[in-house]
Amino acid sequence: MSAERPPPPRRSDYAWHVPITTRWMDNDVYGHVNNVVYYAFFDTVINRYLIERGGLDIHGGAIIGLAVETSCIFAGSVKFPDAIVAGLRVAQLGTSSVRYEVGIFVEGDDAARAHGKFTHVFVDRETRRPSAIEGTLRQALEEILILPKVDATGKPGVR
Amino acid sequence: MSAERPPPPRRSDYAWHVPITTRWMDNDVYGHVNNVVYYAFFDTVINRYLIERGGLDIHGGAIIGLAVETSCIFAGSVKFPDAIVAGLRVAQLGTSSVRYEVGIFVEGDDAARAHGKFTHVFVDRETRRPSAIEGTLRQALEEILILPKVDATGKPGVR
Amino acid sequence: MSAERPPPPRRSDYAWHVPITTRWMDNDVYGHVNNVVYYAFFDTVINRYLIERGGLDIHGGAIIGLAVETSCIFAGSVKFPDAIVAGLRVAQLGTSSVRYEVGIFVEGDDAARAHGKFTHVFVDRETRRPSAIEGTLRQALEEILILPKVDATGKPGVR
Amino acid sequence: MSAERPPPPRRSDYAWHVPITTRWMDNDVYGHVNNVVYYAFFDTVINRYLIERGGLDIHGGAIIGLAVETSCIFAGSVKFPDAIVAGLRVAQLGTSSVRYEVGIFVEGDDAARAHGKFTHVFVDRETRRPSAIEGTLRQALEEILILPKVDATGKPGVR
Repeated sequence: MSAERPPPPRRSDYAWHVPITTRWMDNDVYGHVNNVVYYAFFDTVINRYLIERGGLDIHGGAIIGLAVETSCIFAGSVKFPDAIVAGLRVAQLGTSSVRYEVGIFVEGDDAARAHGKFTHVFVDRETRRPSAIEGTLRQALEEILILPKVDATGKPGVR
Repeated sequence: MSAERPPPPRRSDYAWHVPITTRWMDNDVYGHVNNVVYYAFFDTVINRYLIERGGLDIHGGAIIGLAVETSCIFAGSVKFPDAIVAGLRVAQLGTSSVRYEVGIFVEGDDAARAHGKFTHVFVDRETRRPSAIEGTLRQALEEILILPKVDATGKPGVR
Repeated sequence: MSAERPPPPRRSDYAWHVPITTRWMDNDVYGHVNNVVYYAFFDTVINRYLIERGGLDIHGGAIIGLAVETSCIFAGSVKFPDAIVAGLRVAQLGTSSVRYEVGIFVEGDDAARAHGKFTHVFVDRETRRPSAIEGTLRQALEEILILPKVDATGKPGVR
Repeated sequence: MSAERPPPPRRSDYAWHVPITTRWMDNDVYGHVNNVVYYAFFDTVINRYLIERGGLDIHGGAIIGLAVETSCIFAGSVKFPDAIVAGLRVAQLGTSSVRYEVGIFVEGDDAARAHGKFTHVFVDRETRRPSAIEGTLRQALEEILILPKVDATGKPGVR
C-alpha cells in the first residue's frame, strides 16, 4: 500500500464535462464530502451523457445499463458548498458493455480530486439478458472514447 | 384531505435563488425525484445562504443551526436530469430561531413544483443551548425577510 | 415560535414498528443524523407496511402512492451507529388518500426523537389520476388507523 | 471485459457481520438498490467495527480514517425491502493504512450479491498527516485480518 501513485488526471483527459452542485448532507462528520457521494457524481455524469447524447430512455426504453464494477481513487477532498465539474470519457467499448472513466474536479481546478472507473453492461429491460449497444447510443459512446495511455509497466491501463 | 390548495408560489415570491443539479439516484422506482430529496434541496439553499452571506462557519464557528421543524407540499414532480432552482426567503426571525420558506422550481418554470418551511434554532456548538442570532448572520437573514401574505382565513400565514 | 410544544409521542402511540439501521453517512457535519434522513425513515416504514401487509407491488402494480405533503418535528437527535425503531399509524383514511403518522425512536427509548406526518395520494401508475384505495390495501390501512387525540385547543389534531 | 469472474465470496469468508436495513429510496428507477448505496453499506460496517470494537471516537478522537481507494463488484442485485447482512474482514494492515474487504448478502443467502475493497488511511484530525494505527484499534483490526487466498493466476489477490 506504499506504492507511488500516478499524478491525478487533468480536465483535458476527459471528453465531456458537466457541472454538479454539492449538497449540505454530502459532507460527513469529518467535514468533507463523503466517499460514497462521489459514486453518485459518477452515476450522474454517465447517465446524463446517455440520456442527452445517447438517446437512452430510462423510463421506458428497451435496454437499461446495469453497473457491474466501479472503483474510485481519492486524491484530495471536496467540501460543500464547493461547485464541482465531472469529466467523462469512455475507455473501453465492447458489444454490450462499456467502461467509463470519470474525474471529479473543483470548479477552477485542473487536477482531479478523485477519479474512477465504472462498467455498465446493457441488458434487456425485461429479461435482463445482455443486449448489444447499437445506433445512437454506440455512436455517442464512440464520440468520447479515449484510449488510456500506456502505463509505467508498459501495459496499457486496461483492466 | 379534500381541502382546496392555494396556487403554488412563484419565483418572485422568494428573495434569493440558487441552481441545484439533480442526480441519477434522486429518482425513485416511480421515475421522479423522491420526496426525501427535496429536503436535501432545502438544506442546501439554506446553508449556502448562511455560509455565503451570513458568514456561518460550519466547521469551527461558535454557533450551529439545528433543524427543529420542517415541512413540504408537493405540487408537481421533478425528474433527473432536470435542472432545479431553489428560492429562499425568511418568513419569521426570532432571537435565536428563524423560519425559512423554500420553493423548488424546474429551470425555466415560474410555478413551484414543491414548497416548504424549515425552522432552525441556533445553538452554541458545545453546550447546544440556544444562542442569539447576531451581527452578519442576523443582517443577512433580515435581507431576505419577506412577511407572508395574509391567507384566505384572514390570519397571516404564520405557524 | 416560542409556543410550548406538546410532549413527544410514545412507542405505544403507534400501531406497527420496524427496526431501521443508521448509516455512517447519515451523520452530518454536526455529528448527528441529518434532518433529511428522517424522511427516508418515514418512507421506509410506510412502504414496508404497504408491501408486507397491504400487498402493494411497487414494481408492476396498477396503483402507486405519491407523496403530497410531509412534515417532521425534531424533539431530539439520533447519531450513527444508533439502532432506530420507526412506529407507524394511520391518522386519516380517505377514498384515495391516506395520512400516516410516524415516530422515530432510539432502540430502548420510549419517547420519540422525531415525529411527523406523511400524506400519500394513490394514483393509477400510467395516468397518474387518483385511484380508490381498496381491498387488501384498505384493510391493512384500517388495521393501523388510530384517531389522534383531541389536542389542548379542543380541536382534534387533524390537519 | 469478457474475462471469467471468480465465484462470489461466501459469508464465512468474512470475520464480522452486521445486519443492515434497506430503505425505500435505495431503489433506483430500475427497481433495485442503486450501485452507490453499496458503498454506504461498506462505510457503515467498517465504521461500526471501528467504533464498537476499535474504540474509534468519530466526534472528538485524535485520529480519523480517510478513504483513499474503494471498489465494488456487483454479482447480483438487492431490492428494498430486502434485509441485508454485511460481512467484513481486513485483508492488509499497514502502519497507518488498512484495506478492508466487504461482502453484501441478502439475509438467508450464502453467496455475496456484491463485494468490494475499501482502503482507509488514518490521519491526525487536525493536521491530516498520516498517523500510526495503535493500541485497541490495531488489535481490533488484527482480530479480523484474513489473508486473501492466492488467485487463479498464482498471484495473491492483493492489489
